[in-house]
Amino acid sequence: MENIPIVFWLVPIASVCALGMAWYFFKTMMKADEGTPRMIEIAEHVRKGAMAYLKQQYKVVLIVFIVLAVIFAIMAYGFNAQNPWVPFAFLTGGFFSGLAGFFGMKTATYASGRTAEAARHGLDKGLKIAFRSGSVMGLVVVGLGLLDIALWFLVLNAFYSGKMPTTEMLITITTTMLTFGMGASTQALFARVGGGIYTKAADVGADLVGKVEENIPEDDPRNPATIADNVGDNVGDVAGMGADLYESYCGSILSTAALGATAFASSTAEGMQLRAVIAPMIIAAVGVFLSLLGIFLVRTKDGASMKDLLHSLGLGTNTAAILIAIVTFPILYALGIENWVGVSFSVLSGLAAGVIIGQATEYYTSQSYKPTREISAASKTGAATVIIKGIGTGMISTCIPVLTISVAIMLSYLCANGFDMSMSAVSIQHGLYGIGIAAVGMLSTLGITLATDAYGPIADNAGGNAEMSELGEEVRNRTDALDALGNTTAATGKGFAIGSAALTALALLASYIEEIKIAMHRVGETMTNVAGDTIDAAQATIPDFMNYFQVNLMNPKVLVGAFIGAMAAFLFCGLTMGAVGRAAGKMVEEVRRQFHEIKGILEGKATPDYGRCVEISTQSAQHEMIIPSLLAIIIPILVGVILGVSGVLGLLAGGLAAGFTLAVFMANAGGAWDNAKKYVEEGNFGGKGSECHKATIVGDTVGDPFKDTSGPSLNILIKLMSMVSIVMAGLTVAFM
Amino acid sequence: MENIPIVFWLVPIASVCALGMAWYFFKTMMKADEGTPRMIEIAEHVRKGAMAYLKQQYKVVLIVFIVLAVIFAIMAYGFNAQNPWVPFAFLTGGFFSGLAGFFGMKTATYASGRTAEAARHGLDKGLKIAFRSGSVMGLVVVGLGLLDIALWFLVLNAFYSGKMPTTEMLITITTTMLTFGMGASTQALFARVGGGIYTKAADVGADLVGKVEENIPEDDPRNPATIADNVGDNVGDVAGMGADLYESYCGSILSTAALGATAFASSTAEGMQLRAVIAPMIIAAVGVFLSLLGIFLVRTKDGASMKDLLHSLGLGTNTAAILIAIVTFPILYALGIENWVGVSFSVLSGLAAGVIIGQATEYYTSQSYKPTREISAASKTGAATVIIKGIGTGMISTCIPVLTISVAIMLSYLCANGFDMSMSAVSIQHGLYGIGIAAVGMLSTLGITLATDAYGPIADNAGGNAEMSELGEEVRNRTDALDALGNTTAATGKGFAIGSAALTALALLASYIEEIKIAMHRVGETMTNVAGDTIDAAQATIPDFMNYFQVNLMNPKVLVGAFIGAMAAFLFCGLTMGAVGRAAGKMVEEVRRQFHEIKGILEGKATPDYGRCVEISTQSAQHEMIIPSLLAIIIPILVGVILGVSGVLGLLAGGLAAGFTLAVFMANAGGAWDNAKKYVEEGNFGGKGSECHKATIVGDTVGDPFKDTSGPSLNILIKLMSMVSIVMAGLTVAFM
Repeated sequence: MENIPIVFWLVPIASVCALGMAWYFFKTMMKADEGTPRMIEIAEHVRKGAMAYLKQQYKVVLIVFIVLAVIFAIMAYGFNAQNPWVPFAFLTGGFFSGLAGFFGMKTATYASGRTAEAARHGLDKGLKIAFRSGSVMGLVVVGLGLLDIALWFLVLNAFYSGKMPTTEMLITITTTMLTFGMGASTQALFARVGGGIYTKAADVGADLVGKVEENIPEDDPRNPATIADNVGDNVGDVAGMGADLYESYCGSILSTAALGATAFASSTAEGMQLRAVIAPMIIAAVGVFLSLLGIFLVRTKDGASMKDLLHSLGLGTNTAAILIAIVTFPILYALGIENWVGVSFSVLSGLAAGVIIGQATEYYTSQSYKPTREISAASKTGAATVIIKGIGTGMISTCIPVLTISVAIMLSYLCANGFDMSMSAVSIQHGLYGIGIAAVGMLSTLGITLATDAYGPIADNAGGNAEMSELGEEVRNRTDALDALGNTTAATGKGFAIGSAALTALALLASYIEEIKIAMHRVGETMTNVAGDTIDAAQATIPDFMNYFQVNLMNPKVLVGAFIGAMAAFLFCGLTMGAVGRAAGKMVEEVRRQFHEIKGILEGKATPDYGRCVEISTQSAQHEMIIPSLLAIIIPILVGVILGVSGVLGLLAGGLAAGFTLAVFMANAGGAWDNAKKYVEEGNFGGKGSECHKATIVGDTVGDPFKDTSGPSLNILIKLMSMVSIVMAGLTVAFM
Repeated sequence: MENIPIVFWLVPIASVCALGMAWYFFKTMMKADEGTPRMIEIAEHVRKGAMAYLKQQYKVVLIVFIVLAVIFAIMAYGFNAQNPWVPFAFLTGGFFSGLAGFFGMKTATYASGRTAEAARHGLDKGLKIAFRSGSVMGLVVVGLGLLDIALWFLVLNAFYSGKMPTTEMLITITTTMLTFGMGASTQALFARVGGGIYTKAADVGADLVGKVEENIPEDDPRNPATIADNVGDNVGDVAGMGADLYESYCGSILSTAALGATAFASSTAEGMQLRAVIAPMIIAAVGVFLSLLGIFLVRTKDGASMKDLLHSLGLGTNTAAILIAIVTFPILYALGIENWVGVSFSVLSGLAAGVIIGQATEYYTSQSYKPTREISAASKTGAATVIIKGIGTGMISTCIPVLTISVAIMLSYLCANGFDMSMSAVSIQHGLYGIGIAAVGMLSTLGITLATDAYGPIADNAGGNAEMSELGEEVRNRTDALDALGNTTAATGKGFAIGSAALTALALLASYIEEIKIAMHRVGETMTNVAGDTIDAAQATIPDFMNYFQVNLMNPKVLVGAFIGAMAAFLFCGLTMGAVGRAAGKMVEEVRRQFHEIKGILEGKATPDYGRCVEISTQSAQHEMIIPSLLAIIIPILVGVILGVSGVLGLLAGGLAAGFTLAVFMANAGGAWDNAKKYVEEGNFGGKGSECHKATIVGDTVGDPFKDTSGPSLNILIKLMSMVSIVMAGLTVAFM
């Protein structure tokens, strides 16, 4: 223990502060007025539906986790093909990820009714409840993430301390901890896919019959699918997002720590390696405090206007982002990281990339700009041209994010290794560390950026509650305004999430190499280095490794791996799109049946059977999430066994390049269709109820699974495939 | 000259035979009856529109070609950064590719009216005219292709003979000839993109107003866009496809020849290298004769039934494919190719892959199978679910083609190098030669497979002519049957086209490496080999090259290149989709204007202004094709200058993996939507005019640019980016 620098304790302290503040915000929110009995009843319906779903979901996921943990245990204890800590690390990763989703959803389902009630008294009051509740989610994610990381680091440090030299110990610890990322990724994928299918089956089903066929407004209590739709917002956008970002957050910190351990393994400076390992954790810990500062900056005056609120939200997130950029320099200087200026600039390039990607997302998906307005205009010639235009816009919108991330990769790599393109062993390692830490920088203020993202669904649900409780148009307009407000500020948060996913996936690619080396070392396999000598695999540098496994672009295994990686991204999206289509079809039939069989629903005289719709969504989601999720686990294992290390690296690189681009395309096309519809609803091209409106509703419906099911799941898919490869490195080595 | 083996003369002989038979079929077709004055008038309209378009198109392309040729000339003569023959080779490639499109279209526009007339007298008579006219296209493409190849080979051989050792000479000749592929690719891309935009703007425009708004049938003479629609089939599906497959055909032969020259450069067997160079040409030449045999096997009895015709068409294509598989063994044995059995099995694995991809395409896009029927069924819940289901199905359908091509890559590589995965210099070269020759095998019977593909648009246009000339339902049904017949047999042809594109692109990746080596050699740059010695760049093996340029997956330049490659595919599709959307929008407005302003059109009392619609399509296509096409040329140049050799290889590999998958997705989704609509029209889910029908029409309309503009253009994009990199190798070297 004595070898751990005192500054490390910032990490558990930050974790406790985050969780404490989350608890405080939660308690404050719970004290707020719940509104009329009707409002309480509806909130209760949604809450019960959401909890029932989560329970069902966790049951299924638990089985998957038990099976996988047993396999890991057999690999570890039976065949020595795995570090003995892996089964436990895997389980805690999954547990904490699930917990983050659970707490987030619990808060959201309590908050939405209270937000609706607060919105009755003013826009600012609604914002306060919704945003603080969103902050609970943000703080729980970072708090649990840092807690898990700090605990494991201390446990493993205590266990290995004295048993091996420090250098080897740190590499062992960080690569072991990395595997708890697979637990988080697996949990996140199930949450995103299951939640995504649930929410969009309900949403699409509700819209298709309600809005298109029967011409009743969104969230109308006469629509039997409306409760399921509101439950869906919670299980998909809140619980799914929570698990997702928990995984991103921990993944970026852990992979950077692992890269730090190897990058500075040969450093002569005393304790340099350890400091490089804890640097990402410290940046994240400081980010927690800056996030808290930002959250408190979001203040609302009584009767604040929309513009004031926007300014206030922007102030919070931007202050946190700017401060972390500035503060990184003294942190890395104080830690004594070699080339601290360069590494700080790596962080800076990551942050800049996040901002640019966020702005580009905003440009391509907001109805304030030309691209989305042109999609609205395409509705003049019908639904088909809306779809064509939306797909075209989505595809074009991949250009800026990909170029930005490309520049960020080059810059964070070069800044961290002193602009050394020699591709020497050390320069590569330092460069990769730079790429990893850039991702950490982007996610360090997740506490507040996630708050701006997570409060959207809360506002959305508050709107649903207001509509179903018939609180009148003014309240509904306020909750809509809150939702719209969130969309604007969330753009930056989304940019950070997407950008960091790409950088983290790259860092994981490098971590995979380390895991293979360790797995070979464990079973005593040797390697031939570039000079032609036989060496212990653990001693191999990246050039040695690349040369030994022929991981170059003329190796057909690498190319075939890349083909399969690109295909995996498409196949995965295809399966999830198909799942939403099927589930939505069932929902439509049920809603039609109820309109047909339960007399008086449309006149508001009879109550629809909300429960049946909730059940259909739950069952469909549970049933449909299995195949795509398992595929993400099986593909990298099979490729590893059949094509070996070079095939896996091809798979991960191909999957990353194609998957990232596909994810941006789907997210932006979906977002643009959503807002193109809103633009028409604002009174353009004939406004609500016009033919143009109907055409844009088709676009919005198609966009639903794009932006809320397939697109966001892809970000996890990319990383989960890397994580599985990392955890299964032992198996790949056994088949070599 | 005396060093060329006598068997080489098979190549020009096959070329002359193909062109001669094409001429004979053309003449026979021209003698057929043209039908009623009304039919002649309509055919005349279409012919004039098509020729006017082609003239306009070639004017624009000519400018691009002149500019590029001047640049190449400056590079070659001013800076010695280019082989002096390149500007000429480039121009002839473009010229012959354009010529193939021109002849094909000329034939098609003369044939469609005559097919309609023949169909009045029987299904078999219609088939004979249409299929023989389609054969003209197939034979012209292979004839011109072999002519160009044979001429250049003889010219360059005569020029270089005696000036350098045979080994070096053959490498110089083949790498020079490869650059005429860029001319063909550039021409093909413009033809596909321009033609694709033209045809889909007209088609989508005509359908949106005609079918959806006014409820008049396809090809109805009252629809002002109907002539433009028929012109579009010719410029897009005939001229575009001709230029496209000319490029594929030559590209596969030339890249394999170049790989043969290097693979066997160090062979001790007398003349082995030369024989490896001409082997792909000989296989292609023999394929011409087998295609002719196949074409003559397609015989029709008087009053033949649909089943007879299907059998007859299948007999022709399958016989040719099976024979080339068998005949490859004696050809390669007679040529004395080292490991001829293995190399023949490479060809076999390519052919098998083509068949499997074709069958998978058929399964996912034909209304005889579940996937397409489920898309039709999704129409019960409206247009949105049709789109969601179609996109999902299209994405899932990428699985089998990608896995098949992956297996084919591994098998053709391993068969050709005796199952050697050592990645030694020689084993890689032999393996790559195997991949190239597998592509040649797939395209060797292009004479007949293209005929089955090209006769589809002729039958389609015959249907248009019949409809506009009001020949009655029976004739229309017959032309529809012919069209459907073509769709079934064309599946295999499409499988070969897609599969060979992927394999050829891989072979081009290897050729790029050769070009860089030669470009470095030309300016006297040296390289460090794996052993650490300084060597002449031309002497570098592939492992030397990979090591020197660090073309491995931990090089950020490679990864950034792969990102940009994947993005380029999406951006290109987005731009072409957007172009179709804009052009179709203009067309819709014009058609609506005419319906509104010209009184009596809908009652059939006034003639619409067909010419204005033709003009709109022409202008839009010309205007819109420039940016996407130039992008395909500029991206690889910029990446080469900024990121160097490793970046370019990353770009090409990323573009290939993502582009191939995206192309399969778009083509299959589009095809499935088309047939899902047909399945409803066959009387399912309410049949024509029902709500379900309207929903599937939206799907079909969205699918139009998917399957006929963006999807097919991607295959060329992938290869054009490789070709540009190859031709611009000198520039990349200059910036190193």
